[in-house]
Amino acid sequence: MADLLGNLRAGDTRALARALTLAENGDAAVLDALDTTAVPQPRRVGVTGPPGAGKSTLVSALVRHLRAGGTPKVGVVAVDPSSPFSGGALLGDRLRMAEHTLDAGVYVRSMAARGHFGGLAAGCEDACDLLALAGFDPVIVETVGVGQSEVEVAGVADTTLVVLTPNAGDSVQALKAGIMEVADVVVINKADKPGAQRLEEDVREGLDLRPHPAPGAPHWPVPIVRTVATDGTGVAELAAALAAHEAHLRAHGLLDASRARRRLARLEALAREALAGALHGQGALAGRYGALRARVEQGSLTPRRAVARLLDGVI
Amino acid sequence: MADLLGNLRAGDTRALARALTLAENGDAAVLDALDTTAVPQPRRVGVTGPPGAGKSTLVSALVRHLRAGGTPKVGVVAVDPSSPFSGGALLGDRLRMAEHTLDAGVYVRSMAARGHFGGLAAGCEDACDLLALAGFDPVIVETVGVGQSEVEVAGVADTTLVVLTPNAGDSVQALKAGIMEVADVVVINKADKPGAQRLEEDVREGLDLRPHPAPGAPHWPVPIVRTVATDGTGVAELAAALAAHEAHLRAHGLLDASRARRRLARLEALAREALAGALHGQGALAGRYGALRARVEQGSLTPRRAVARLLDGVI
Repeated sequence: MADLLGNLRAGDTRALARALTLAENGDAAVLDALDTTAVPQPRRVGVTGPPGAGKSTLVSALVRHLRAGGTPKVGVVAVDPSSPFSGGALLGDRLRMAEHTLDAGVYVRSMAARGHFGGLAAGCEDACDLLALAGFDPVIVETVGVGQSEVEVAGVADTTLVVLTPNAGDSVQALKAGIMEVADVVVINKADKPGAQRLEEDVREGLDLRPHPAPGAPHWPVPIVRTVATDGTGVAELAAALAAHEAHLRAHGLLDASRARRRLARLEALAREALAGALHGQGALAGRYGALRARVEQGSLTPRRAVARLLDGVI
Repeated sequence: MADLLGNLRAGDTRALARALTLAENGDAAVLDALDTTAVPQPRRVGVTGPPGAGKSTLVSALVRHLRAGGTPKVGVVAVDPSSPFSGGALLGDRLRMAEHTLDAGVYVRSMAARGHFGGLAAGCEDACDLLALAGFDPVIVETVGVGQSEVEVAGVADTTLVVLTPNAGDSVQALKAGIMEVADVVVINKADKPGAQRLEEDVREGLDLRPHPAPGAPHWPVPIVRTVATDGTGVAELAAALAAHEAHLRAHGLLDASRARRRLARLEALAREALAGALHGQGALAGRYGALRARVEQGSLTPRRAVARLLDGVI
């Protein structure tokens, strides 16, 4: 384990892959051994949007831009919220990211959200921690915006990028599903297609509906950037918008605040999970739970009444 | 409270509405007072499928059929997994169910999934318990199959109905998203539209991909029923398929088994929630948690290391 962490710190890619797999398989030892208080936190950019918006192509173009501009190590975590399997449905995305496979300064990891202990957010946190230890900065977390996943990805990112395309159906869905609420930067990708102007107006309207910041609170006017990821158009402007948002966060102390909030959310999630584990452990709580459980299974006690008895005097 | 439960048991609709609102608002007192071990469990039918499949119209037609056949009280819980507000986005569905508003033997309730303590499954369980107390049987739980909601609705139902329509996009999505895995009965609604035959073949193929039952385990060949909900075509056949599935469950003791499993899942969820609440309560656990929380917020202790210390000796 000390070896693994040592190799990881030295930037060894195989050690990183191994640590990520261990973490993904629920082997928490590597994570427990990790003291992230001593590791500089990388900048985290979340990328979300409806299927087909060209997120992977855009991320690939952004990575290329950052690398060309001298960023030494860029990490990408691609999360598929619908797949129980690592990388399965993301094969296409992986192929789109294939241009970076020979670049040691880029590390791409596909992750399944289902099945991971604690869901998407926990999995991303762990992956980002490990990438941080290996020196990757920034880490880009990409996920398809379906269900709750866009809210979860916003929860792990410093800056959340929402990617839309000029396609009435998708954009209306995205605006409706509240995906706008989490956007720090909006990208209109495939902006060479008809309907980009119309979409921009719709997005602007959607953004205007967001709650106003409290009086005195710093205001960030969400920029809308048009890109054509396939030929790199607008990617420099996107990188500039991301840098501007980072500067905004730092200027107002929001980066530290949001990271502290994230640590607390993580603590809460881990504490809940540990307590749930204690229900099935060896202690007094587990003993009492087992007895109540048997009565609930038989049907002679309701779940609610059982729980009311569970905590009496144990905690 | 005793009054409310008394009136509920007597079938008073206003008491039912009030109890459901209290439960939905997180006022657990009414639920804690409820001893469901003494109440006969209604049959629960879950209905899911992609948006636009005609689920509400189908449910409405099924309710009409059951009522005409002499079922005294039919309950419907319509869940919108995307809405944080009760009934908001379901207004259209409510209108489609409006034919039953003058029928005292039908009770329709819209429910929001987000925000409810414990999510969709917990909310449905509570609503079903209250409807059961008021004598409604069966209770039909309808939800849009997006994200995880179809899996959750299958978790609260004895029989899960998946509704599809002859529309390539939707059906492919549904088949892809694993909605098939939870189906006990598949309905092809709007079966008078072109493509019904093709869809039935796709569904059959999708069903064939499901894991086989263990050797010796009872096998249920999932029926595919074609309906035109707007004119009632196929609704009698659908009711027959539902009755056949119930008979299958009863014949093999699966109904009791699945209900026991559901009670245990509910117990586990409630116990976890109660323990999470204890983190922020008055006891020793909360005191220790508060101290660790402060260090994590400052950044001098990682969430994982904090949790490792949390449980030492407390439980």
